[in-house]
Amino acid sequence: MSTHFTTAASAQERDRVDPLGSYRSHFVAAEDDEIVYLDGNSLGRPPRAVAERLSSFVAQDWGRRLIRGWSEGWFDAPLETGDRLGRTVLGAAPGQTIVADSTTVSLYKLIRAALTARPGRRRIVIDRANFPTDRYVVQGIAAETGAVIDWLDPDAATGVTEADVRALVGADTAVVVLSHVAYRSGYVADIPAITSAAHEAGALVVWDLCHSVGVLPLELDAWGVDFATGCTYKYLNGGPGSPAFLYVRTDLQGTSRQPIQGWMGVRDSFEMGPEYEPADGIRRFVSGTPPVLAMVPLTATLDLVEEVGIDAIRAKSILLTDYAVELYDRRLAPLGVVLSSPRDAAVRGGHITVDHPAFAEIIAELWAQGILPDFRPPSGLRLGMSPLSTSFAEVERAVDAIAAALTARQERNES
Amino acid sequence: MSTHFTTAASAQERDRVDPLGSYRSHFVAAEDDEIVYLDGNSLGRPPRAVAERLSSFVAQDWGRRLIRGWSEGWFDAPLETGDRLGRTVLGAAPGQTIVADSTTVSLYKLIRAALTARPGRRRIVIDRANFPTDRYVVQGIAAETGAVIDWLDPDAATGVTEADVRALVGADTAVVVLSHVAYRSGYVADIPAITSAAHEAGALVVWDLCHSVGVLPLELDAWGVDFATGCTYKYLNGGPGSPAFLYVRTDLQGTSRQPIQGWMGVRDSFEMGPEYEPADGIRRFVSGTPPVLAMVPLTATLDLVEEVGIDAIRAKSILLTDYAVELYDRRLAPLGVVLSSPRDAAVRGGHITVDHPAFAEIIAELWAQGILPDFRPPSGLRLGMSPLSTSFAEVERAVDAIAAALTARQERNES
Repeated sequence: MSTHFTTAASAQERDRVDPLGSYRSHFVAAEDDEIVYLDGNSLGRPPRAVAERLSSFVAQDWGRRLIRGWSEGWFDAPLETGDRLGRTVLGAAPGQTIVADSTTVSLYKLIRAALTARPGRRRIVIDRANFPTDRYVVQGIAAETGAVIDWLDPDAATGVTEADVRALVGADTAVVVLSHVAYRSGYVADIPAITSAAHEAGALVVWDLCHSVGVLPLELDAWGVDFATGCTYKYLNGGPGSPAFLYVRTDLQGTSRQPIQGWMGVRDSFEMGPEYEPADGIRRFVSGTPPVLAMVPLTATLDLVEEVGIDAIRAKSILLTDYAVELYDRRLAPLGVVLSSPRDAAVRGGHITVDHPAFAEIIAELWAQGILPDFRPPSGLRLGMSPLSTSFAEVERAVDAIAAALTARQERNES
Repeated sequence: MSTHFTTAASAQERDRVDPLGSYRSHFVAAEDDEIVYLDGNSLGRPPRAVAERLSSFVAQDWGRRLIRGWSEGWFDAPLETGDRLGRTVLGAAPGQTIVADSTTVSLYKLIRAALTARPGRRRIVIDRANFPTDRYVVQGIAAETGAVIDWLDPDAATGVTEADVRALVGADTAVVVLSHVAYRSGYVADIPAITSAAHEAGALVVWDLCHSVGVLPLELDAWGVDFATGCTYKYLNGGPGSPAFLYVRTDLQGTSRQPIQGWMGVRDSFEMGPEYEPADGIRRFVSGTPPVLAMVPLTATLDLVEEVGIDAIRAKSILLTDYAVELYDRRLAPLGVVLSSPRDAAVRGGHITVDHPAFAEIIAELWAQGILPDFRPPSGLRLGMSPLSTSFAEVERAVDAIAAALTARQERNES
């Protein structure tokens, strides 16, 4: 990281020297002033290239190649897009990643697969601060398989730690289900240390990377990750409901079995034989016909990420969240707002959450002004900063608007 | 049906009087002569309106409304698009259909849900002529739940009949899994009669409508259907890998439970509470974040279907397949080709399959000429006719090309 700021540096000064500042022009409407968008960690802005790529896909690939598209690349699209994600943002060698279903369906497949890889073990560890869908999927799997859930209660001041996991995993733990970056607090879990702790107990780990992929450097292979999934519509700007990725380490592909056996996961899909014979390798984790058109927008962001590099993205992400914390200290802390995210950038993802009892009411007021953070119950405003499309000026405008709304409300209540 | 032809009528004559002939201009490249496309029942051509709708969606809905899109319609998109399909092509009242996952994942959810609605019953009936993914999903579910599969072997001269089903269902049958139109032969199963026969034994039926939706009139409510699913990329032209629909009759929604519990299927998704509390109604069959962008192309076809009406589509479909059978009789039967589809249009879907041992080799030759039927092992050419975009001239050109390739091959072999 080459840029450092004094706390006096203005947002404009920060934007002027931002080496990624010019990338905002690659996103639809990002340079318009009417919206302050701090929700790119929930739904990333569309890259400008997306509309043209979709049009070209419709006119040429779908419109002219028609069914031939399946033998000219679409059939392998889940694996090839997966490999590209592996290379660009996951730190995963080819043959371990697919893009196919929703994150929820992918979680279901992976956790069920993990259970088959640890036959006889009946316990699943998951933390109560995990994203709802992760918890609900685990509750459903527990109900259907008879597995028992061990709930981990992370300390709000640390997020999930290696010690937390060591304290819960045991000889009957099949799988641990955790998020890399906590969706609310933004805490970063230590993937290699926690994975290693689980492995020492003979357990496997499913990592949810929704809030880290595309903004934090990931080294799934080097970290010894077993299974991982994450969505592509946040920092990867794939569009609303774009398909998730799913990663299974090579040596686990043959020893774990996912339950949704479909025609796109077999040895020869067009032989249409009588028995389900799973394909070798990661293809066996594909179930139905993959969402080929829905993968198109994602390619536009991957081009940008490849050009910029994930390290430069992370460097700007840290500057953005540092600045948000700075502004919080100056303008929100005096109003009684609590910072629910780490101050240490090393354990902080791409967003911060600030809490105040009034935020449940103020959120509508902010949205009406075109200031778009996210609300997370019961009282959190989540400020998500997408390094390729968010400016420092946006961060300042958002914090100022929050401070103004809160001040106005306090004055109304006092009068 | 108002149009009748003598067998002497030329393809050109048939096209000239075709009341739907002008609709070909609504599809990308459909009027170009370079391709004869008889695979619209596998991947429908893109409607011309699709590229513009996607561009507008990217620029406005995603690009300008951003995260607000979720509260401005996207959240209900799986249900609203489902209701629209219900009204337009399924014969289903609102609140019973969603658009969300792939057909394979939907089949998995529905068959598992059917098992929960018939606790204690352990047998699943499915036919060996069913599409591979249906059979593989059932094999997977049998393996994980201990259910036993009763295989139905349909007679090639009739397809699956009510009598076949009556002979197999019993007091231990939980669910029957069948396709409305057989993917290979094109036989139409009698949904009301078969569903009723299964019900008499206390069993439920999951209908796969992949090869009938958009080309055959469907009356799911009137027919007493329990569960149904089908893809939207065939006669509904949703694009490669577009999401499937899933139908659950109202009274079964509360008594059956699907296993993939996700955050988009709960009572209040944004409360993010500790326990999975399924939403009332069909929403509980939604799992993860729905593929909003991927649903956009589908709307273009639904507009056309609403304008034309499914009865007019079926009427042209019958004329097209009648013509294909006529041409088969004249030009392919003399060459030793077998018709593997019904002659009676009343029990025939939108495609026919013809078999000859040489077709496995000839298919590549046809594709190289721009004649695009589908190959179905071991020896079938499937001629799929999509009423809104296929011309009678295409059918004739395809049959002529098949006859020519076969004749040339026979002459080569004799010389």
